[in-house]
Amino acid sequence: MPQKACRVELLASTPDATSLIYAAFRQCYHAGFVGDMWPRLLAGEIAADKQAAFITKVMESGHASPIEHVSFTFAVEGVSRALTHQLVRHRIASYSQQSQRYVDGSDFDYILPPAIARIPEAKERFESFIAEIGNAYRDLKNILEANGRGEKAKEDARFVLPQAAESKIVFTMNCRSLINFFEHRCCTRAQWEIRGMANQMLDICREVLPVVFKTAGARCERLGYCPEGEKFTCGRYPLP
Amino acid sequence: MPQKACRVELLASTPDATSLIYAAFRQCYHAGFVGDMWPRLLAGEIAADKQAAFITKVMESGHASPIEHVSFTFAVEGVSRALTHQLVRHRIASYSQQSQRYVDGSDFDYILPPAIARIPEAKERFESFIAEIGNAYRDLKNILEANGRGEKAKEDARFVLPQAAESKIVFTMNCRSLINFFEHRCCTRAQWEIRGMANQMLDICREVLPVVFKTAGARCERLGYCPEGEKFTCGRYPLP
Amino acid sequence: MPQKACRVELLASTPDATSLIYAAFRQCYHAGFVGDMWPRLLAGEIAADKQAAFITKVMESGHASPIEHVSFTFAVEGVSRALTHQLVRHRIASYSQQSQRYVDGSDFDYILPPAIARIPEAKERFESFIAEIGNAYRDLKNILEANGRGEKAKEDARFVLPQAAESKIVFTMNCRSLINFFEHRCCTRAQWEIRGMANQMLDICREVLPVVFKTAGARCERLGYCPEGEKFTCGRYPLP
Amino acid sequence: MPQKACRVELLASTPDATSLIYAAFRQCYHAGFVGDMWPRLLAGEIAADKQAAFITKVMESGHASPIEHVSFTFAVEGVSRALTHQLVRHRIASYSQQSQRYVDGSDFDYILPPAIARIPEAKERFESFIAEIGNAYRDLKNILEANGRGEKAKEDARFVLPQAAESKIVFTMNCRSLINFFEHRCCTRAQWEIRGMANQMLDICREVLPVVFKTAGARCERLGYCPEGEKFTCGRYPLP
Repeated sequence: MPQKACRVELLASTPDATSLIYAAFRQCYHAGFVGDMWPRLLAGEIAADKQAAFITKVMESGHASPIEHVSFTFAVEGVSRALTHQLVRHRIASYSQQSQRYVDGSDFDYILPPAIARIPEAKERFESFIAEIGNAYRDLKNILEANGRGEKAKEDARFVLPQAAESKIVFTMNCRSLINFFEHRCCTRAQWEIRGMANQMLDICREVLPVVFKTAGARCERLGYCPEGEKFTCGRYPLP
Repeated sequence: MPQKACRVELLASTPDATSLIYAAFRQCYHAGFVGDMWPRLLAGEIAADKQAAFITKVMESGHASPIEHVSFTFAVEGVSRALTHQLVRHRIASYSQQSQRYVDGSDFDYILPPAIARIPEAKERFESFIAEIGNAYRDLKNILEANGRGEKAKEDARFVLPQAAESKIVFTMNCRSLINFFEHRCCTRAQWEIRGMANQMLDICREVLPVVFKTAGARCERLGYCPEGEKFTCGRYPLP
Repeated sequence: MPQKACRVELLASTPDATSLIYAAFRQCYHAGFVGDMWPRLLAGEIAADKQAAFITKVMESGHASPIEHVSFTFAVEGVSRALTHQLVRHRIASYSQQSQRYVDGSDFDYILPPAIARIPEAKERFESFIAEIGNAYRDLKNILEANGRGEKAKEDARFVLPQAAESKIVFTMNCRSLINFFEHRCCTRAQWEIRGMANQMLDICREVLPVVFKTAGARCERLGYCPEGEKFTCGRYPLP
Repeated sequence: MPQKACRVELLASTPDATSLIYAAFRQCYHAGFVGDMWPRLLAGEIAADKQAAFITKVMESGHASPIEHVSFTFAVEGVSRALTHQLVRHRIASYSQQSQRYVDGSDFDYILPPAIARIPEAKERFESFIAEIGNAYRDLKNILEANGRGEKAKEDARFVLPQAAESKIVFTMNCRSLINFFEHRCCTRAQWEIRGMANQMLDICREVLPVVFKTAGARCERLGYCPEGEKFTCGRYPLP
């Protein structure tokens, strides 16, 4: 039952993403058919920086929907059930999460909150208690199995598993949904754990598709000021 | 830290629901304007059973979208975090859930799985361990507060709270999303807890709006046979 | 084949809307169950202005989702197919639109753009041509029926009907989707026709639920400045 | 102003689609992390037919969400505004459509319904009238420009453009949304035009990702019987 840290892997993203967004934007304003333009885009006949400049200009005018054509699929491990419960509240996305009904939790890994890790007394209390949870889970699972609950024993025993129990999840979001996700979850008002995962995701997105994600992040990054108000601001950017 | 049972309260539903669905269906096929027909519908000039018969006929032809105009808002307590994590995976819905970041968990209530309740040894192990979780939560919260974590102490201490911890949630679904919810969650393949909640919701929906929900429930109810296949069928209805 | 003007009728909206939003917000931060609080809310035990002040404060902190529990259903006539094609692009909504496959278009009504109405020469050309479209539709429908196309004659004849052809539609949006709709469609950058409909809708929403809609409209209304940039600003509010 | 036929081009689809769906399904039931399995999947260490068999088995058990991780982006030309108005009613999708506000309609192409094409008298009436629509559009645009309407002249003149006017559109749907789209739009109850486009899309999807789309199409294809009822069945499959 070791402690786990959040790890984000990019499984897939839409290929030729810059050209695809460029083509989608162009189709809105162009008399011709981007299906005819597409082979030339793939052949590099329109310079990448020219495509990027066009995309930036149209995005700045407030036209956001064409970036939806590009999606990213991440696999994440080392996150708590507390985090995944927050994550799946983002509805414009697709999720495949490890099931506690099917996967045995006898040796579950756990997430250790940094504020607890920093205080020896808290860390000691937390980690010894995690071991007790494991004992309780195994005891209950054994009792239930001994009483004929079979495969369903895991389904009931898991009621003692903690929010800290590690989960694994595969999820897909399009760029527009990702930008919204980053606005909320990269802000210091977000919980430390989901903020950490969001920042890992943002690093990946920026590397793969800078034209879309170069100004993504908490809303202050794009605005140059903090829109969260006096009570909630972290002070990194001035209030408006 | 008492045990809690699931309790579903209907807070609101769209008024004049049968007439609203009737009007929406009619607008699709009618030359006139249902805005003009509406006062006559409210005045009862078209008999309720005639409206219901029309709705039933069009729904049976496969035209499902007009029932989306009617929504139900439920408040639910006495459900576990295991249940709410499943619930919020339904994306065509709106949720407002009690936050463990803000609400103190020192005296959390809990959900006792029936299979555990039925075995005295399991029940004893489960309930005594729930008490230990409360101790661990309070200890951690105290240590964190003593170390200056302030309001955020709850946010970290909750990592030891179990899946069994009781949650409260307000949510809204439209009729089409509810029918899909019932198809999945009233089936015996669903977990016992969310099936129990789904059945309470279905009873309410059937009473409020029988024309839409009279054949709702697990898919077998409407089909007259079980579409889940040999491996998963509960046997209540024959396989096709 | 008369000219028609846009007319918006409110068919239904979620009852006790202020209390419902208040209850949903409260459930997020409150240890108790709003299902227990609800009868007291309906009985008026918490003053409406106190509820409104609480809602305003939480909305200003950036917590927007609880207003999703309240929906509005409108019936609209006197709008063009150009408008409805734009309208149905708003995906967080439900639509029931008059079908040109089923409703006869022989005497279709039409929308006259104001810029055309203001120029006598344009108006004359437009209206005489609308009459010709009616002739073409009826001729085609008759030929198709005479050749055994039956009920499907309308489906094909409608290919000559213009974008100006009047449509009727019933649609439902929740408050959060409505606020987004107003941000885009009440702005002077939106087309005149959908802006006119949006403004009629906003008047209704403001009257029914001022706590949510008092600052709704184009984004400048809430921000106090125009976020559309130098190229697109209408000048009513200063640039930032 | 020539006649145009529907042409569907696949611009992009999620790479390594079978492995991605396999990985997503596996993560639900597997103790390990598919992020670790992923390089081995890309290296071909798990045979494609073994992956496909696993996917088929889980999909048949009713678990549909993992196919959402894979999306297809199509560019389509040669479709009418009647078709695109139906298309964009599918809400789990992203659209970028050629704008009649920005693109000049003076020489618009058009869609000729086959039932009209088959009747010489109808075809003659239709095509000569299409030419008249072009005249009316250009006249109105000229008058509006001469009266200072500038760029907005197109926005108003287009009110005379017909439903038959050709449009171009880029859109993205995930596999689950595509399967739903095919169920509705490949059925003979759907309009001929969108059914033709849906069948072109289905051919592409089947070639790219047979494991998901081999049984896709109208619902009868998968069921082996027609679920549309006696009144609507086309007779190709028996009623249940």
